[in-house]
Amino acid sequence: MKNVEEVTAEVLQKIRPSFIESEKLIWLANELLRTVKDLASNYEGVLDVRLEGSVAKGTWIRGREEVDVFVQFSKDVEKNKLEKTILEVGNAVIKKFGGRTEIRYAEHPYVEGILNGIRVNIVACYKVEPGMWLSAVDRTPYHTEYIKSKLTGTLADDIRLMKSFMLGCGVYGAEIKIGGFSGYLAELLTINYGSFSTTIKAASNWKPPIFIDIEGHYANRREALKVFGRPYILVIDPVDKKRNVAAAVTDTKLSEFILASKLFLASPSERFFYIPERVNRRITMTEIRRMLRGRCILGLRLKVQQKPPDVLWGEIKHTLKGIYKALEYEGFKAFRYDAWSEGNACIMLFELQELNLPTCYVHYGPPVSLDNVLDFIKKHYDAKDTVAGPWVSGPRLYVLKSRDKTSVKDIIRMRLIKGDISVSAGLMEVIKNAKICKSNEELARFASKNISFRRFLFEFLEARPSFLAKHVQ
Amino acid sequence: MKNVEEVTAEVLQKIRPSFIESEKLIWLANELLRTVKDLASNYEGVLDVRLEGSVAKGTWIRGREEVDVFVQFSKDVEKNKLEKTILEVGNAVIKKFGGRTEIRYAEHPYVEGILNGIRVNIVACYKVEPGMWLSAVDRTPYHTEYIKSKLTGTLADDIRLMKSFMLGCGVYGAEIKIGGFSGYLAELLTINYGSFSTTIKAASNWKPPIFIDIEGHYANRREALKVFGRPYILVIDPVDKKRNVAAAVTDTKLSEFILASKLFLASPSERFFYIPERVNRRITMTEIRRMLRGRCILGLRLKVQQKPPDVLWGEIKHTLKGIYKALEYEGFKAFRYDAWSEGNACIMLFELQELNLPTCYVHYGPPVSLDNVLDFIKKHYDAKDTVAGPWVSGPRLYVLKSRDKTSVKDIIRMRLIKGDISVSAGLMEVIKNAKICKSNEELARFASKNISFRRFLFEFLEARPSFLAKHVQ
Repeated sequence: MKNVEEVTAEVLQKIRPSFIESEKLIWLANELLRTVKDLASNYEGVLDVRLEGSVAKGTWIRGREEVDVFVQFSKDVEKNKLEKTILEVGNAVIKKFGGRTEIRYAEHPYVEGILNGIRVNIVACYKVEPGMWLSAVDRTPYHTEYIKSKLTGTLADDIRLMKSFMLGCGVYGAEIKIGGFSGYLAELLTINYGSFSTTIKAASNWKPPIFIDIEGHYANRREALKVFGRPYILVIDPVDKKRNVAAAVTDTKLSEFILASKLFLASPSERFFYIPERVNRRITMTEIRRMLRGRCILGLRLKVQQKPPDVLWGEIKHTLKGIYKALEYEGFKAFRYDAWSEGNACIMLFELQELNLPTCYVHYGPPVSLDNVLDFIKKHYDAKDTVAGPWVSGPRLYVLKSRDKTSVKDIIRMRLIKGDISVSAGLMEVIKNAKICKSNEELARFASKNISFRRFLFEFLEARPSFLAKHVQ
Repeated sequence: MKNVEEVTAEVLQKIRPSFIESEKLIWLANELLRTVKDLASNYEGVLDVRLEGSVAKGTWIRGREEVDVFVQFSKDVEKNKLEKTILEVGNAVIKKFGGRTEIRYAEHPYVEGILNGIRVNIVACYKVEPGMWLSAVDRTPYHTEYIKSKLTGTLADDIRLMKSFMLGCGVYGAEIKIGGFSGYLAELLTINYGSFSTTIKAASNWKPPIFIDIEGHYANRREALKVFGRPYILVIDPVDKKRNVAAAVTDTKLSEFILASKLFLASPSERFFYIPERVNRRITMTEIRRMLRGRCILGLRLKVQQKPPDVLWGEIKHTLKGIYKALEYEGFKAFRYDAWSEGNACIMLFELQELNLPTCYVHYGPPVSLDNVLDFIKKHYDAKDTVAGPWVSGPRLYVLKSRDKTSVKDIIRMRLIKGDISVSAGLMEVIKNAKICKSNEELARFASKNISFRRFLFEFLEARPSFLAKHVQ
């Protein structure tokens, strides 16, 4: 077995850009910066144009190069003016470099383009003093400066290892779909603990709640909790004492990170890391069909509209939870659930203990000492769906009732039609028209046609975080 | 609808013995008393012979005549001497009257005989001062005296109504099998509230815990609770302040009595009473088979030894509970259970939500922050019965496992063979050899051959207290 140092040394060889790759990327970034500056200078209220992100900090991973150019506006510029300007400038710049543009949406729209296979983002923010934030990305230039000021020795490489580890373990990314660790959070953790391996050692011993306050903005944890409540992980932003950098991290992703750290230290391996060259093996339909055997899966297919991923995934997660609650309310036991989406297709999967409820259930009546006990008897005594009882046990009455519908498909269909499931307003209409899969074979057939869904279905059925998955070599 | 007065007047006509019937019974009782006195006078230590029970008090119900003759021994007589004497005297007396004797067992054995269709009990007790009790029946003469001292006006008829009501509602009898109200308790309640209808009115408003202390042995309820804990119903024995006359009443029987009182007042009817002439209608096998349809019944047949009913039923109830707990532990949902016994046959029935468990279940792992989390993964990762996972959700790990056995018959058989069910020592061997019914049809076939079991099975499937049952006219 290799030790941590041997593994990280080998991983670094693969994720650290070569000198030539670095030069090329930096050249492209500077060309972009210059061009954006030229064009933006024609607009009123533009105060500065800067490189941000991992290129500016020199912390990017090979294979995941990305150039972020930020146009800083005066706080006097109105939001719609700012949006209009950034779209015009962004489109013009990307076109000038011969790329195709796409408009993306965060809090504000921004322009994305692919140049020589490298993703380029041209983003607008306000230039403001710390704490005076007008938009969510106004902090970014301060983040960049803060990280750059801390990068000594081999810390950039440690940050690369950290991001690669989080990527490989499926906990990287603050977007709602993932609910994991942002790049900035990965950087702060590494800075806080000093290196990749010390961070992993610390994380392997984490017992949430976790509290990290690098710049000592608070006297102690108790003071901080007065502001933030009791998050599982609280990392105070060095440039904004009111912000928890880890606010997006779900407790599941936090736990996965702790577990991955423990497992990695127990048996260090490249398997835990994202490595650009690695190709996931093809999943066969034989595997899928074998894994589906005997499993009780409720599948819902819906057509979703194009919308910003964080909006769509917020709605999907809310809706998954609403359906889960309806299932539990009806008496089903749902072990797990998850969703897949691509284009305007979306499939929600629920793994259940059973696809059918028992025919009979016991209905609890009032204690005999209450006056409404006679109403209960009147209601159930001759009711068609009363199988047995009412009987007395201990202090109260019970009656055995039969269910009208027992299959999960019928019950969920009925509730969907009635609108009797708590779903996101944005999915209300499409969920009503959702198709309920008739069988596991229907899921298999769809997986045979769609390779992305096939992978998702495989992972859903395997139910293991990537660092435990067998199909990851 | 008749009112309470009309109904009770009609019931009284049927349960009150006629003048001639009374004379006949009292004549028989006195003849027996004289004969026992004659014979018992030959034995050393016999101090007195008395009539006890409902004949002595004049509170018996037509059709349920019973003569109790008590031989009172000096406290110097040893227990085995007392037992030997009562069996000799009892046997001789019953034979003299031309009856067949049988030995019954309470705390001590006693002799029972049937003369002209009337049950006669010849019982031994010690003649002691109150509170100096040497056996459980030593209080009986004091009870008789106490009740007789209170019988004024029509109170004897009210007591008859009370007993008939409790009998009709299935809550009469302090034996373990029933866990209901003793005759003495019925008498005390009627004395306490003054009449049958006032007792029923009071009971219909009972909200347990109930506290009744006719002779004011305690300053208040709180003082009494220091001695008795918190029983649902506490009725202080007028002749023994340390005894709760209602100790045998289960909370279910107490609730049934409250409910029956409410229902009776809401719509008074003879249906609630035991009336001698009434014959329960025959239950057909068609009904039984219709009721069994779709029901999930686990049936166990065992051969039990002859033993005093309270011993046997104590063991049966303990064993029912043990099996119930094993079922719940294994993941079954048992709605109700009950047992039937006659001769040395005994059948235990459990109504379940399902006869088979789902193939898969979720096994909870440790929180990821615990050190044994890696052992959990090692144990389950490649295990044959692992279907999916381990996965992380929230703070901990889970794994989806498959069950080896799913049918209730297989699982209970395995646990019985292993001795892995908490059963009474007295039933240990027979429960190991219990036969598990293969199907509802097997139960039906047994019911077709045994009319007593057929009625029990019908009542079990109907699951209604007798005062709610449809087959009681």
